[in-house]
Amino acid sequence: MDLDTRIDRAVTRSVALGRGGAAPQKLSSALTYATTPGGARIRPTILMSVALACGDDQPEVSEAAAAALELIHCASLVHDDLPCFDDADLRRGKPSVHRAYSEPLAVLTGDSLIVLAFEVLGRAAAVDPSRAAALVLTLAQRTGMPGGICAGQGWESEQEVDLAAYHRSKTGALFIAATRMGAIAAGHEDPDAWEDLGACIGEAFQVADDLRDALYDAETLGKPAGQDELHARPSAVAEFGVDGAIRRLKDILGGAISSIPACPGEAALARMVRMQAERLTPVAPAHSRS
Amino acid sequence: MDLDTRIDRAVTRSVALGRGGAAPQKLSSALTYATTPGGARIRPTILMSVALACGDDQPEVSEAAAAALELIHCASLVHDDLPCFDDADLRRGKPSVHRAYSEPLAVLTGDSLIVLAFEVLGRAAAVDPSRAAALVLTLAQRTGMPGGICAGQGWESEQEVDLAAYHRSKTGALFIAATRMGAIAAGHEDPDAWEDLGACIGEAFQVADDLRDALYDAETLGKPAGQDELHARPSAVAEFGVDGAIRRLKDILGGAISSIPACPGEAALARMVRMQAERLTPVAPAHSRS
Repeated sequence: MDLDTRIDRAVTRSVALGRGGAAPQKLSSALTYATTPGGARIRPTILMSVALACGDDQPEVSEAAAAALELIHCASLVHDDLPCFDDADLRRGKPSVHRAYSEPLAVLTGDSLIVLAFEVLGRAAAVDPSRAAALVLTLAQRTGMPGGICAGQGWESEQEVDLAAYHRSKTGALFIAATRMGAIAAGHEDPDAWEDLGACIGEAFQVADDLRDALYDAETLGKPAGQDELHARPSAVAEFGVDGAIRRLKDILGGAISSIPACPGEAALARMVRMQAERLTPVAPAHSRS
Repeated sequence: MDLDTRIDRAVTRSVALGRGGAAPQKLSSALTYATTPGGARIRPTILMSVALACGDDQPEVSEAAAAALELIHCASLVHDDLPCFDDADLRRGKPSVHRAYSEPLAVLTGDSLIVLAFEVLGRAAAVDPSRAAALVLTLAQRTGMPGGICAGQGWESEQEVDLAAYHRSKTGALFIAATRMGAIAAGHEDPDAWEDLGACIGEAFQVADDLRDALYDAETLGKPAGQDELHARPSAVAEFGVDGAIRRLKDILGGAISSIPACPGEAALARMVRMQAERLTPVAPAHSRS
């Protein structure tokens, strides 16, 4: 079974757990709405790729980890779209959860998906309690306070922002969770050794995002373009220029590949990172490069 | 060390975990604000009482469980108070989190407390991974969908409500979590056997709440009184009358005591339930009983 199918089935199985029995119908349906269609599912793909590189000796555990991580990501999108944050009408081409259902149901959908992520890991304890508990701890640390994506959002309410801590928690945290959780799920002896890979991929994502914001128009992006320049936000393009930012992206991905710890599937994992790198790097429209 | 002190220290230690390092200051401070002052801390008290009745052979695990359960309860209060739900200005005599901080920070405070609860249990795996993972699973099931307090709130967005499922999830879930988690934390062989006790205590709470709503004035309650009658809500007082509801409360608590499974501290636990019962039973003002 290919990776996309394994991830898709794992997410679907997990959401079904949250919808069983005598459940309130609207909230139940919102759990599926918020997790489909799946988008690129880049975080669970990285997680599974690391697990495979480490031997993936307990596929049920790695699939549970991949699903849990994706549920947290989806929960964060639902809450980020709320009127009190981005007030977004659309997400992945359809109405955001609070527009499609209601604001109370959007809050509850996010809450339920967060809890479901941990339930899925709790169930994986039937296969391996030690790995399951270690996965709970890593996912919690990269989701909550003081170092997870909740902290990342929290920085946006501060007058003075620790930019390094902000980027590490806002963009980096779930990528670091992905590589660490992949290693833990497959029983790698040193999950810490996998943090650099996750951090590099997270940083590459940030630079690629800055590039897309600078190079693409709103139609291609599916959201307003040129926002970094408009709001004078710190961005890799502002700092290095377009060509410099593209070089920076390549450097970071080179660093990512060289950070991969020794493991049975090292070469295949390096290929996966290169492939993601190609998907990430924006193809600059000719007029922007002249 | 007495129970209240153990619980208080466990909650304080847990919140400190969420506030360490380079954290956004306002969100960090809101975590403490939302968890203090502690109120009656009835759920962790029940949890610890059950753990003690079962021998409490791993106090670090039972304290982690108690703290995790209280964090979930506090998270639910923060989100329930949001403008899109109860729009409450006050909670425990001080401004609600969204009034004191902001709506975005209140959403993030609830999210962070939920995640922190699971982090605390993940850390308890250093003592006992099997019990920690079982605690994660029970807490998740009683918090999320389809049977936890998220489901309970979700029922309030439905046209047709399954009243049994609604009460079981809205009021009962965290009491069932309390007795199950106490048993799991202390290694009791059959945590399922403890569910009836939690369900009875939850039901008693519901009846006591209905009685207080009918008997007390707004000043004593600290919130508007007579709301059940005003909104024609189903309530034990509407169904049985005041004296009937008081008899019903005593019956349920009798059932609670007789449901206590065989364990070393059975007698002491029965005394604790009786004591809670006395605290629960409203002292009807003379004019209401005539």
